[in-house]
Amino acid sequence: MAINSTGLRPDREADDNLHSSLPTPASDVVEALASASLRCVECATLYPALEVGQPPRYRCDCGGVLDVEMDFHLPQQGNPVKPNPAALRYGLGPEVDGGTPTAGSPWRQVFDERAANPPIWSISSDKMLLDNSGVWRYRELILPAPERFVVTRPEGNTGLYPVGIENTASGRAGHRQIGAYAGLERFFLKHEGENPTGSFKDRGMTVGVTMANMLGAKAVACASTGNTSASLASYAAQAGLEGIVFLPAGNVSAGKLAQSLAYGARTVQIDGDFDDAMRLVEQVCNELGIYLLNSLNPFRVEGQKAIGFEILQQLDWQAPDWLVLPAGNLGNTSAIGKAFRQAYNLSLISHMPRIASIQAAGANPFYKSFKQGFAQRESVQADTVATAIRIGNPVSYTRARRVIEESDGIVEQVTDEEILAAKAVIDRAGIGCEPASATTLAGVRKLVAQGIIKRDEQVVGILTGNLLKDSKTGIPQTVAGGSVKATIEAVRSVLL
Amino acid sequence: MAINSTGLRPDREADDNLHSSLPTPASDVVEALASASLRCVECATLYPALEVGQPPRYRCDCGGVLDVEMDFHLPQQGNPVKPNPAALRYGLGPEVDGGTPTAGSPWRQVFDERAANPPIWSISSDKMLLDNSGVWRYRELILPAPERFVVTRPEGNTGLYPVGIENTASGRAGHRQIGAYAGLERFFLKHEGENPTGSFKDRGMTVGVTMANMLGAKAVACASTGNTSASLASYAAQAGLEGIVFLPAGNVSAGKLAQSLAYGARTVQIDGDFDDAMRLVEQVCNELGIYLLNSLNPFRVEGQKAIGFEILQQLDWQAPDWLVLPAGNLGNTSAIGKAFRQAYNLSLISHMPRIASIQAAGANPFYKSFKQGFAQRESVQADTVATAIRIGNPVSYTRARRVIEESDGIVEQVTDEEILAAKAVIDRAGIGCEPASATTLAGVRKLVAQGIIKRDEQVVGILTGNLLKDSKTGIPQTVAGGSVKATIEAVRSVLL
Repeated sequence: MAINSTGLRPDREADDNLHSSLPTPASDVVEALASASLRCVECATLYPALEVGQPPRYRCDCGGVLDVEMDFHLPQQGNPVKPNPAALRYGLGPEVDGGTPTAGSPWRQVFDERAANPPIWSISSDKMLLDNSGVWRYRELILPAPERFVVTRPEGNTGLYPVGIENTASGRAGHRQIGAYAGLERFFLKHEGENPTGSFKDRGMTVGVTMANMLGAKAVACASTGNTSASLASYAAQAGLEGIVFLPAGNVSAGKLAQSLAYGARTVQIDGDFDDAMRLVEQVCNELGIYLLNSLNPFRVEGQKAIGFEILQQLDWQAPDWLVLPAGNLGNTSAIGKAFRQAYNLSLISHMPRIASIQAAGANPFYKSFKQGFAQRESVQADTVATAIRIGNPVSYTRARRVIEESDGIVEQVTDEEILAAKAVIDRAGIGCEPASATTLAGVRKLVAQGIIKRDEQVVGILTGNLLKDSKTGIPQTVAGGSVKATIEAVRSVLL
Repeated sequence: MAINSTGLRPDREADDNLHSSLPTPASDVVEALASASLRCVECATLYPALEVGQPPRYRCDCGGVLDVEMDFHLPQQGNPVKPNPAALRYGLGPEVDGGTPTAGSPWRQVFDERAANPPIWSISSDKMLLDNSGVWRYRELILPAPERFVVTRPEGNTGLYPVGIENTASGRAGHRQIGAYAGLERFFLKHEGENPTGSFKDRGMTVGVTMANMLGAKAVACASTGNTSASLASYAAQAGLEGIVFLPAGNVSAGKLAQSLAYGARTVQIDGDFDDAMRLVEQVCNELGIYLLNSLNPFRVEGQKAIGFEILQQLDWQAPDWLVLPAGNLGNTSAIGKAFRQAYNLSLISHMPRIASIQAAGANPFYKSFKQGFAQRESVQADTVATAIRIGNPVSYTRARRVIEESDGIVEQVTDEEILAAKAVIDRAGIGCEPASATTLAGVRKLVAQGIIKRDEQVVGILTGNLLKDSKTGIPQTVAGGSVKATIEAVRSVLL
């Protein structure tokens, strides 16, 4: 069935009798997915996570995006812990002891004990330690995958850098410049560029490729030239699956694909626009046992929730006041907001952080909707130097809107100049990031200047990608100054 | 004093009355360095690590390279643990229990407990956890720096990937291709490309910049366009020091310097050859309170020892049979061999691994010396696509020779074609590395084929840098195949 990529009702095509060529799932897979469902974010229809004999479902029949729902089971007990919907309201919540609700202790204890295992490989065993992954450490809240299917590098365990005016140690004077630029006393930067392929995409891809493994797919595919394709190619290669990148022809920058090509991904260039390409891709994937790991795959978002859980754990379960991040396709806004919501409902934390999603002014559909109170879903022709968030019609709009509303959040926009200026600050501090990541700092500075974020509030900002991803944008491209004579006086004169 | 960069006796220049402009060190610095000395690797002269009122010493008066010697003190007790020189012989050693000597338990316990601390930041404190650094976790064996001077990202804690035919788990079929290529059943790859700036240099730079901090230097300098300058620039920026890169003019590829320039390093181009540049640099550094962090700085090598300690810890203190690594300036060969020697002397491990240093055939001075039983120190005009090991006259020759001799080690060489073929295997497995790193795998394959490394021996190989460091060498630069029509049949036909 062909799906219109704007999310409206699909057109029915002649190929309605497509059948899945994925094998029948193993019994432990069926059992693992029995407690998971997929809820349409538009019409609320509920589907099972696994429809045996059917191709994987990527959308509701109405065309809407799907969101995973799961019962959460503490590992030892096996009794489902029901989330408390009444606890959703910001600021209200269960009994608090020492800053964290006592009811959340069993879960916090599980995650803290797992984080305390040193990553040791016994020299004679191939046993893989799920606990050491920054995603699978929280597996009961992400995907109850049987261990034999899990494809993990591991990923996550990324740095949380104190960079605020008051919370930066003496051996980090350069880092404190970031806090000074932001105007914040207690500021942390969470650096997802420290993941194995250099971006946060690894968080989602470990779950997506694990699902592909569980379903017996021979290959996984996406349509992206950037961080997504690099991550997909790496995890597919690790698992021994084929990684395929579908692209509209003429949109194939080998530089952006270098990482994917190195990891061995296969590219298919399609003569048509992006909508044509995506429609065909979904059709042929179902036919050929290829699992689609595009941004609308709901299990990728589940993996990205781990960014939120890990931040909370690294802060010893003291939720910050604000979480600020770049906003493009709105996958992270949806995922991290969902993680905080679930953490709050499970009493892991005593309050929900407010989410601030920052868009590039040249790619600001979510900002435009926010300014009208989300009266209308906007879309734009996107154009920004921050190419990773250069999205005109974000797939996860509805999920992200919910996150902003329930967290009493904000959507803001910043110009390309502001983004590049912020990137220079992050780079010169010695940390470094790819251009789109700096949107976070540009947004924080703006919100602090406006008094929306207070100077003494606790803020965590996400850096989404590694400096090495882009060696050109916003980086000096020539070496300043000519040469000096090979004498002590000449060298001394340029240094003083 | 001017120093000839080949390590021979210095020429005396008119500027003999240079004086240090570094401030008098603080009392806790003097105390911390009191137990450290610098031993000349050529003539064995011993110097104190800190000569108050003197500029930092980078060489022996005879021109020889210096090596750090220290007493080791267990943290709680404060009693020095004397290493046992009689235990140096491979295969002999103290009483062994369960694979590790019982006498080493106190040290192993210290390091294992530190590795078991989850990396948590208390939201209201700027306390930095040295234990979480893959270098400072082993600080009693590396540098007893007072905590207030330590400049750490943190670094280390890099992946140790099982990739052998027999020790690779089911979710890693792609990784097993590496073991198949090597011909090894139990093979691990230690990926130093996962350090903060993308190479193993961060291990040494955290110690070097910490020393600069202890000495009150205003700036740190090196002469390198590659990984060293990137690491130096990042740590200098973090510490609020100036990072300076000295270069012979005309040798300034902005692409290779992109990382350094992003981090804010300053470049000084000198009109002369490399020898001229280095001579001047050392002179002016002493004058201007700039601490020189070139490859001959002995404290950088101390930090690189942590690679060895961490490997041992990740293998639960079961020493492998072989350690294989790329060999350029021989800093890692010296450092990791020294780490294994010290670990053995402290009874942390029951035997010393054999070290195999692999050179590029076009940059093989150490190999040529090895083939003559080290009768003569060779030098060559270096030329190889593996630019990070393109060194004709390695600074750490003498230290590395000792390591090969005492570990019953091997020096081998591989061609550029073999290096690039091995890189393709590592990349296609989904792990990826920069070109010089692949020298390791090329060397392993060759040594296994020759029967020098046995198929069932336990081998650890070092990957020195991240894939993202070089997006061109050994990576497909064009996207294969044309485009296909936007129909299901056409797309299907290219995929099947």
